[in-house]
Amino acid sequence: MNIKLITFASMNFKIIKEDKNSKARLGEITTAHGKIKTPIFMPVGTAGTVKGVHQHELLEDTLAKIILGNTYHLFLRPGLDIIEEAGGLHKFIGWNKPLLTDSGGYQVYSLSENRKIEEHGVKFQSHIDGSYHFFTPEYAIDIQRKIGADIIMAFDECTPYPCEYNYAKKSMHMTHRWLKRCCNRFDSTEEKYGFKQSLFPIVQGSIYKDLRIKSAEKIASFDREGNAIGGLSVGEPHDIMYDMTETVCSILPSEKPRYLMGVGTPANLLENIALGVDMFDCVMPTRNARNGMIFTSEGTINLKNKKWAKDFSALDTNGTSFVDHSYTKAYVRHLFKSNELLGKQIASLHNIRFYIWLMEEAQRQLNVGTFTIWKNKMVKKIVSRL
Amino acid sequence: MNIKLITFASMNFKIIKEDKNSKARLGEITTAHGKIKTPIFMPVGTAGTVKGVHQHELLEDTLAKIILGNTYHLFLRPGLDIIEEAGGLHKFIGWNKPLLTDSGGYQVYSLSENRKIEEHGVKFQSHIDGSYHFFTPEYAIDIQRKIGADIIMAFDECTPYPCEYNYAKKSMHMTHRWLKRCCNRFDSTEEKYGFKQSLFPIVQGSIYKDLRIKSAEKIASFDREGNAIGGLSVGEPHDIMYDMTETVCSILPSEKPRYLMGVGTPANLLENIALGVDMFDCVMPTRNARNGMIFTSEGTINLKNKKWAKDFSALDTNGTSFVDHSYTKAYVRHLFKSNELLGKQIASLHNIRFYIWLMEEAQRQLNVGTFTIWKNKMVKKIVSRL
Repeated sequence: MNIKLITFASMNFKIIKEDKNSKARLGEITTAHGKIKTPIFMPVGTAGTVKGVHQHELLEDTLAKIILGNTYHLFLRPGLDIIEEAGGLHKFIGWNKPLLTDSGGYQVYSLSENRKIEEHGVKFQSHIDGSYHFFTPEYAIDIQRKIGADIIMAFDECTPYPCEYNYAKKSMHMTHRWLKRCCNRFDSTEEKYGFKQSLFPIVQGSIYKDLRIKSAEKIASFDREGNAIGGLSVGEPHDIMYDMTETVCSILPSEKPRYLMGVGTPANLLENIALGVDMFDCVMPTRNARNGMIFTSEGTINLKNKKWAKDFSALDTNGTSFVDHSYTKAYVRHLFKSNELLGKQIASLHNIRFYIWLMEEAQRQLNVGTFTIWKNKMVKKIVSRL
Repeated sequence: MNIKLITFASMNFKIIKEDKNSKARLGEITTAHGKIKTPIFMPVGTAGTVKGVHQHELLEDTLAKIILGNTYHLFLRPGLDIIEEAGGLHKFIGWNKPLLTDSGGYQVYSLSENRKIEEHGVKFQSHIDGSYHFFTPEYAIDIQRKIGADIIMAFDECTPYPCEYNYAKKSMHMTHRWLKRCCNRFDSTEEKYGFKQSLFPIVQGSIYKDLRIKSAEKIASFDREGNAIGGLSVGEPHDIMYDMTETVCSILPSEKPRYLMGVGTPANLLENIALGVDMFDCVMPTRNARNGMIFTSEGTINLKNKKWAKDFSALDTNGTSFVDHSYTKAYVRHLFKSNELLGKQIASLHNIRFYIWLMEEAQRQLNVGTFTIWKNKMVKKIVSRL
């Protein structure tokens, strides 16, 4: 067995096994709030809640090991004073496992109409009450110190797709300068809640290979405890995404976890694991769930479809969440047709559990050395529509 | 101990203890799907789901013993063919405990603009697609046979408040004639799913004592396995409601369960138990929950109130649901301010559990003979606002 162990002040990442036929690897991250086997999917809890799911369900039913919070949303509501007074986000939401926060960069970028980006930082308008705010790289770190996640993200600009080469290049350089400022602030401040935090920088460069190479080299040179890839899954074709991931992963140090932000479909996850990615997050499983779309190992199901009206078989016969065997397709379809909350709850639990099961299965296959064969078979099935 | 045991073909009701200082009694209903200690509160699952709550949560966390379905809603969606093909409502929704369905009378009455009541039955328009339907007393029984609840209700007209004496009188007589038709149909048809159903008739008569007396006598004369009181909690003052309940309970046979439909606040439940009521249902705990209002043993809490923004104490320190100790007031307030699904889920679980706990507590107090003292103390607390 090929084990590499790198210990940092705040976080460990251990590679347990590397795939012979791809860049995939089985690993383990250790944080102050627990261990995370990789590849891992991290459910998104934007405002301090994974929509429609209780914390104990995340823990005991979906078997989530780490969840995300969004700095932009949490900053605006409930606000930093409340989170601080609660003793940080873990305590505020009642989640004693690892947490990761993004830096607000992506959300601010999504506000397109209501923000102005300049070298010093970004001025933006709240989507809640229209109030004006100004995020700098330094402030994004200060905020994330106060929120108190185990892993926090550098403040970057996420370029849109399509994006002019010159804009992508200029923006990438600014993201690199911002990273320097983020690191300076991070390294000159302390954690607030008695445990270490880790800062991950983010590779940008849009869909331009030369920029992605430059950015990956620059980001790697900062030598942080993990590295992220941003600016993908923003509308570009999947092949381009894979091309960029492959390029970047070949440069980012293999002894540190690689986190592909905001990706994606179950097939996207598997393909990117094969390219060397260890960590994923995406709103897709929960957002699609709320619209009645579930992912299964045999393909996707649109629960609103008339086809399921009298299908009294289990929601997902292969499923590993309690909802898969407690409810029938016909019943959950009825809930969606009637716009009942319980439909959203059931589909959300199912999809999160499916994503995490898929990662557990990838881990098992990596462990026994059959990842690539399994991955190729699985991708064919999960992209079909039932 | 004063035990009266009456056995019917389909249902048993056993009075375990009677209060010395009120008309309250501790009892037990036995149905094909299990036993129900009374007084009992029945959560409302309008469209085959108690909004925002999983079936296993109802069973294992709220400790609900029986839930309701609404004939009007289930008839329109998913429709009888789907429920029948599933093998009845128990199987369709995955609830293997007692179920009760109303007859559709109340919902049809609520449609005020979109229905026409005549002797033969009621023509109404679907709130979903505007389609026209016609319910007769016979058809309401046929539908409830197909839905397959353990306890089903007679088809009645629920008069509004205020209501002219002459209209109330005319309507009451029609409800009595409809009851005769319901009983004829019920007694000449069989259950569809291999277990016995029970039909409860409904006392009407608006707020007129002489009508309520006449109606209670008439309804009692049908000698069914339980009796219901309808047409209350439709806007009349609480004192009038209690006056009507007292009058009716003094006439309805004490050896059969008495069900007060659609009532009410926690204090309403306790006062009506003291007047001899055994069964309650109401959308209040779940509807108010979805608006951020929770009931506790110390009074009601509006979770949206700024007062709770930094209150990091448990949601309800006296509460007996897991949510009461897993989440803080500040966190649940944040969920409501952010319009997050989880807020509705938490408050719904809390309120249902609170209502059922209140009934369990009433049962305990009845058992040890301290019901009235406890009830008077409790009512004072639960009507306050925190």
